[in-house]
Amino acid sequence: MENRIKTLFGIRYPVIQGGMVWCAGWELAAAVSEAGGLGLIGSGSMSSDELRRQIRACRRATRKPFGVNLPLMNAKAESHLDVILQEKVGIVFTSAGDPSRYTSRLKAENVRVCHVVSSSRFAMKALQAGVDAVVAEGFEAGGHNGREETTTMVLVPAVCRAVNIPVIAAGGIATGRQMLAAFALGAEGVQMGTRFVASREASCHENFKKKVLELGEGDTMLALKSLQPVRLVKNEFFEEIHWAETHGVKPRELKRLLGRGRSRKGMLEGNIRHGELEIGEVSALIDEIKGAGEIVREIIREFEKELNRMKSLHL
Amino acid sequence: MENRIKTLFGIRYPVIQGGMVWCAGWELAAAVSEAGGLGLIGSGSMSSDELRRQIRACRRATRKPFGVNLPLMNAKAESHLDVILQEKVGIVFTSAGDPSRYTSRLKAENVRVCHVVSSSRFAMKALQAGVDAVVAEGFEAGGHNGREETTTMVLVPAVCRAVNIPVIAAGGIATGRQMLAAFALGAEGVQMGTRFVASREASCHENFKKKVLELGEGDTMLALKSLQPVRLVKNEFFEEIHWAETHGVKPRELKRLLGRGRSRKGMLEGNIRHGELEIGEVSALIDEIKGAGEIVREIIREFEKELNRMKSLHL
Repeated sequence: MENRIKTLFGIRYPVIQGGMVWCAGWELAAAVSEAGGLGLIGSGSMSSDELRRQIRACRRATRKPFGVNLPLMNAKAESHLDVILQEKVGIVFTSAGDPSRYTSRLKAENVRVCHVVSSSRFAMKALQAGVDAVVAEGFEAGGHNGREETTTMVLVPAVCRAVNIPVIAAGGIATGRQMLAAFALGAEGVQMGTRFVASREASCHENFKKKVLELGEGDTMLALKSLQPVRLVKNEFFEEIHWAETHGVKPRELKRLLGRGRSRKGMLEGNIRHGELEIGEVSALIDEIKGAGEIVREIIREFEKELNRMKSLHL
Repeated sequence: MENRIKTLFGIRYPVIQGGMVWCAGWELAAAVSEAGGLGLIGSGSMSSDELRRQIRACRRATRKPFGVNLPLMNAKAESHLDVILQEKVGIVFTSAGDPSRYTSRLKAENVRVCHVVSSSRFAMKALQAGVDAVVAEGFEAGGHNGREETTTMVLVPAVCRAVNIPVIAAGGIATGRQMLAAFALGAEGVQMGTRFVASREASCHENFKKKVLELGEGDTMLALKSLQPVRLVKNEFFEEIHWAETHGVKPRELKRLLGRGRSRKGMLEGNIRHGELEIGEVSALIDEIKGAGEIVREIIREFEKELNRMKSLHL
């Protein structure tokens, strides 16, 4: 059975590391790509100069394919795009915005483009914009999320039914079993963010990594629904905004309450109580910080073991 | 590979029909059991006399095993239990309440007991209460739901890790592919509610069945979080309570606003705009009303086809 994701990106294993803000620097991306997956540099928390340095450092660290995640609503998106094209990055994952904005410019430079979607309607829009693949990211995923709250179990088959380009499943995936489940739903690859936050190479603060290990079921929640929904750790910061959200506080007031730099404070500076900590539900299943390459190999091993177990299954 | 769910209930296929209020009468339960699955009578919307009539009618309609779903917080739970024991029902699925309440009484009468859980903590509580199996029901499921919002993709592996009794996956499952995904996650059976609402034998109003066919992604939402979370169709009834919930209305006021009999009004009487319509996210994938037996056979056929496809998979 052909796997279009491996062919599209020229990688050995269809395991993609999410380009998470404050976590996904060149060390992480290079380690994942070196192990045969696809590493992504997360440009969302970087200046364009920083992004350029990160791309160059990644290229020195690995000769394998890697990419950049580009959030389209980011104020620096346009200048990030220039850097990406100047540095001849071959793979771009766009998210949070209109896929028609840059796809044709990227495709004209022979860049492989993949767009993150939270619904089959957005997947069709991405297909029309000319992307090569989509990431179908469910409600359980960490960070920015869709408004419709469709979970990975429902979203992946819905997107696979709607478009005929390859689909990468994201949200709630950290193990080989979950990767196999995603393939059963029709995906040809998986993207994992949360699992790679708890990796040695992630560039976030150690306090955040340790917090991820402690999280159990119910310790994250989708918040900020009146602005842009984000899945967060339920810490003091969350409680503050959650109270406001359930007591009729208007979006503009909510923005002021939020202040600026709360995700930097949480994820980069390690303020676990008052910072914004973006992470997925699957943190409940993660108990150990590991090397990113080891994470890729472990997932593939478990995937193959579980696939063998499934082969002896009959009803 | 042994399947403990088939053995436990003495059924041919590990496909269980949820005991949904206003939908799961004897006609539906008997049709599912006749097709080799496990049909459940939903006692939550019945009087105890009605439940007795339903059990007797189901026994006349099929000699195959069937069961009753018993919501434990229901005011009639105690008298329902008497009926279940008097009528010698062999299988009971308990939900929404403390599993230690009736499990030992049921087990003493040789009844197979399965409890519905929304977290691994509740699964361990059910194990301690002595149940034979658990249903791990994710956030995407219709009707009553957990507070932690853990989705099927994360919940099923978490519950399988926590307990060694067999696990039935529920929430977001309506197709053979999704059933296969649930098995990849470690489940040994699936419970489906939404798929069987859109069946010829479901006892709800035709208006509700037709509404289910129309629903797309994002057309249901988890509501009533300050009382008891329930996944509903986003109709006028939903909009009313959603406004109240996001504007600091207290639980007691919310209860008054709800009024009584809104689920009856919606699901039994067919008031699609002002009634409460409990349904899961997977309604987005359902386009046709079918016979319940046909639904069981179709799911098994797709499961086997997709399993064969997976057998030719390698990375």
